[in-house]
Amino acid sequence: MKRSPDRPDTSDTSDTSDTPDMPDEGSNTKQRLYEYLEILSAYRLAMNTINWDQSVCGAPAAGVSFRSKGYGVLTREHYRYLMAPEFRTLLNEFSLEPDSLEGDIAREWLVELARIEKIPKDEYTAFMTYISKSEAEWEEAKRSGDFDSCKQHYQFIFDTARKFSEYIGYEKHPYDAWIEMFEPGMTVEKLDHFFGQLRDEIVPLLAAIREKLTSSPERYGFLSRTVPREKQKRFAKRLLEVSGFDLSRGFLGESEHPFTNAMSIDDVRMTTHYYENEFVSAIFSVLHEGGHGIYEQNFERELANTGLDNGSSSAVHESQARMFENAFGRSSSFWSGLYGEMKESFSPALDDISLDAFVEAINRVEPTLIRIEADELTYPLHIMVRYELEKAIFEGALEVEALPEAWDRLMRAYLGVVPAHHGEGVLQDVHWAAGLIGYFPSYALGNAYASQLLHFMGQEVDIDRSLRTLDFGEILEWLKFRVHAHGKRLKPEQVILEATGEAFDPRYYIQDLKSKYEKRYGLR
Amino acid sequence: MKRSPDRPDTSDTSDTSDTPDMPDEGSNTKQRLYEYLEILSAYRLAMNTINWDQSVCGAPAAGVSFRSKGYGVLTREHYRYLMAPEFRTLLNEFSLEPDSLEGDIAREWLVELARIEKIPKDEYTAFMTYISKSEAEWEEAKRSGDFDSCKQHYQFIFDTARKFSEYIGYEKHPYDAWIEMFEPGMTVEKLDHFFGQLRDEIVPLLAAIREKLTSSPERYGFLSRTVPREKQKRFAKRLLEVSGFDLSRGFLGESEHPFTNAMSIDDVRMTTHYYENEFVSAIFSVLHEGGHGIYEQNFERELANTGLDNGSSSAVHESQARMFENAFGRSSSFWSGLYGEMKESFSPALDDISLDAFVEAINRVEPTLIRIEADELTYPLHIMVRYELEKAIFEGALEVEALPEAWDRLMRAYLGVVPAHHGEGVLQDVHWAAGLIGYFPSYALGNAYASQLLHFMGQEVDIDRSLRTLDFGEILEWLKFRVHAHGKRLKPEQVILEATGEAFDPRYYIQDLKSKYEKRYGLR
Repeated sequence: MKRSPDRPDTSDTSDTSDTPDMPDEGSNTKQRLYEYLEILSAYRLAMNTINWDQSVCGAPAAGVSFRSKGYGVLTREHYRYLMAPEFRTLLNEFSLEPDSLEGDIAREWLVELARIEKIPKDEYTAFMTYISKSEAEWEEAKRSGDFDSCKQHYQFIFDTARKFSEYIGYEKHPYDAWIEMFEPGMTVEKLDHFFGQLRDEIVPLLAAIREKLTSSPERYGFLSRTVPREKQKRFAKRLLEVSGFDLSRGFLGESEHPFTNAMSIDDVRMTTHYYENEFVSAIFSVLHEGGHGIYEQNFERELANTGLDNGSSSAVHESQARMFENAFGRSSSFWSGLYGEMKESFSPALDDISLDAFVEAINRVEPTLIRIEADELTYPLHIMVRYELEKAIFEGALEVEALPEAWDRLMRAYLGVVPAHHGEGVLQDVHWAAGLIGYFPSYALGNAYASQLLHFMGQEVDIDRSLRTLDFGEILEWLKFRVHAHGKRLKPEQVILEATGEAFDPRYYIQDLKSKYEKRYGLR
Repeated sequence: MKRSPDRPDTSDTSDTSDTPDMPDEGSNTKQRLYEYLEILSAYRLAMNTINWDQSVCGAPAAGVSFRSKGYGVLTREHYRYLMAPEFRTLLNEFSLEPDSLEGDIAREWLVELARIEKIPKDEYTAFMTYISKSEAEWEEAKRSGDFDSCKQHYQFIFDTARKFSEYIGYEKHPYDAWIEMFEPGMTVEKLDHFFGQLRDEIVPLLAAIREKLTSSPERYGFLSRTVPREKQKRFAKRLLEVSGFDLSRGFLGESEHPFTNAMSIDDVRMTTHYYENEFVSAIFSVLHEGGHGIYEQNFERELANTGLDNGSSSAVHESQARMFENAFGRSSSFWSGLYGEMKESFSPALDDISLDAFVEAINRVEPTLIRIEADELTYPLHIMVRYELEKAIFEGALEVEALPEAWDRLMRAYLGVVPAHHGEGVLQDVHWAAGLIGYFPSYALGNAYASQLLHFMGQEVDIDRSLRTLDFGEILEWLKFRVHAHGKRLKPEQVILEATGEAFDPRYYIQDLKSKYEKRYGLR
């Protein structure tokens, strides 16, 4: 039987009113608010599913033109509901309720709407159209390493970003308007403090470590041994199972670049990529996306489809991913519980490799060019480079055309390495071409949040024992209660304050890095 | 990086008007017609992608509740545009153009809309809601074989179907209204004639063959030999390649039940299912879905997203599927070209099996209980059983509660076999529980259309040579020009008339079956 796309096939066709406006005039305002939220969720579901399909389910490249056309229509429809005056009226009304869920929902949406409507519609559209196209050209430029062919895009995008900052408004720094989109409450002032401390402590530490580094490729050569995809795949599921991701309410697929994309609280999708000659790649990406995924699965059920069913912020989301990837996934405790099993699953690849050798290999420090392949210590330095460049552009202290030179200079200063090719340098990340200005700091903040959370978790939970015994129950309970359940209902600073009893303090992160790596490299 | 579902990410947000009605007041009527069609296509894309995702991409069962909710909203939105007065006005206007594409588009949509609006909205909704739920309960009933637990659903569905026939209207027989939905221009009168001829010729032929059948399971035992999935998968792609499906504009996935679902002319999705101990299953389902898929890929490009980018009818669609599956896929010519390659690909499974033995095995006749596993000769008898039962119910000559008894009686009469369990009998197909009343005849008609088309194709194309040399070029050209390119722009009777110069005549089909099987079983 062929599935006929013509045949209406629905459980709800209750409205046939002529203008595609809201149904059920009779319903009360609370019902009506939830009707709007349900409609907005339906469009999100459609767009998320199309994105997922595109990356994971075999959507042929040739179909991209019709798909984008359809996607554009759906976004426009979504946007209309978002901007509907009745929705605004409902949000205004409910935003006055101080202590209700609906009050929290309404306030969150009003922030979002306020930002969008401050930007002139035409300029917003032009920007969105632009970034949907520049990404493909960036990809080509990255491949060829030709900065000039991408320069005009970066120019337009950063020019527009600065203009939008003026529309949206900010207190002290134009960059703040963009940081706020991903990390509510965060500012350049606070980030300068954060990155300043990092720079002061980590750059000298790395320099000291570099003096101790000996080039010994054969020592870590086993990381390139062949492990067949199917074996890696089975072990990836096992990793998710151990770390508490509920596979019955989610799915692990495959795509070029790993990501997490939740369709709903009961349908959390993640991807990884299996390299037969680099088995640790899938291990850490699965743990990373698993951290994102567990967060999405643990929202309070009442938040589903309200818009509060999201992470508190990008950095809080990253904190969960980096916690599972690094704090748990690179710890000797965790592998003391799981290494035997992996060795057996991957046999013969690791037959002659001891637990200690494996743990050492996954914790080695090595300054390299590519952010997403960086080790735990050098990672925040990669972020710092990007943060300083974005900030300088907003300040007018750096021109877009001078980006490559500035990039190379900062890389040399912080990491001591310089790209031979812009594809490994200033062109390596999609973020700028995709208009994701101000996102980068979230990665480093996420690491720092994770450290602070773990410090306080450790006062109530025996983390080491949980990892050793592969029993994540208490860890998950702590995270669910303190972080996950609230979703976007708590601002990031509230999450940190309520979970740890303190304001955010990067000292935990810096201490963690210092004590771990000073010890590992015999510097104290 | 986590994909943020919040972030508007579109290339088209040009409209922010308050009521979610149509944009661009200034555009002319033709533009406006195409704007509506683009919107309707976007909703179809969304719903098709959600369906595909659900069956193929790992969507977890636990997520079904939120997915259905979202799907329901999208269907409702789609329905509103379908029923928008302005769309109607545009359709009425363009339907007056006798010779334009827009005239054909408008007339097609008006037929569809006329049918939907004749049914009172409440009853339509109640029916749609009902069938979206009864399918799951049917599945359970099929498993347990308990007709009584499904009886009330069939009762409601057939009662409603009869009522809808009165609303929609028909000339002679209430069943006609439902047949027309899938096969425009087809009626009970014509089908009685068609199935009457089939019954008169095929039932006695089968009886004669049965006397010649000897039970020799070891003779076909090789069909159950193990062929690993990966080998089958590679060969499935090869089959599509040979038969002319353009894999760069499509994709072959996997699902429980094979199907074809086109997202657009440049993105035609199909599925199959690989059984390690039944390798022919995937071969024939791939050829079958490939036939559907090639049809969808070959529509004139100007039909894309107009609503005419569909098969002329269900039966014409099935004709293409059955042509590739049976006429080509079970022919000795085709396998004389491809068997060596398959033998090698599947080695050692077929090492000791000759081409002739393979061709004989895939063309054996054996009356069995299950339609979808039936051979080419008994297949139409399975359809006839269903046709007669549906017709009798519409006539009031059969009560729903008497269905099982009537089923078993007809199976005995036509096929000489009787199910021991209703799950292999009256409950085997999803169609009734899914409200697909009147669809079954399309399968048998599709076979008959295929025979007639092939007869005339054979006058212009050396089909045997094309199959032997695995060069489908001329076959595809003939099909594209005569059948595929027109999409839904031609009614099925026009397709047959224009391709063959004659009205539909089932004699070709019956002759094909008779000459093939009389010869095969030494009956002449």
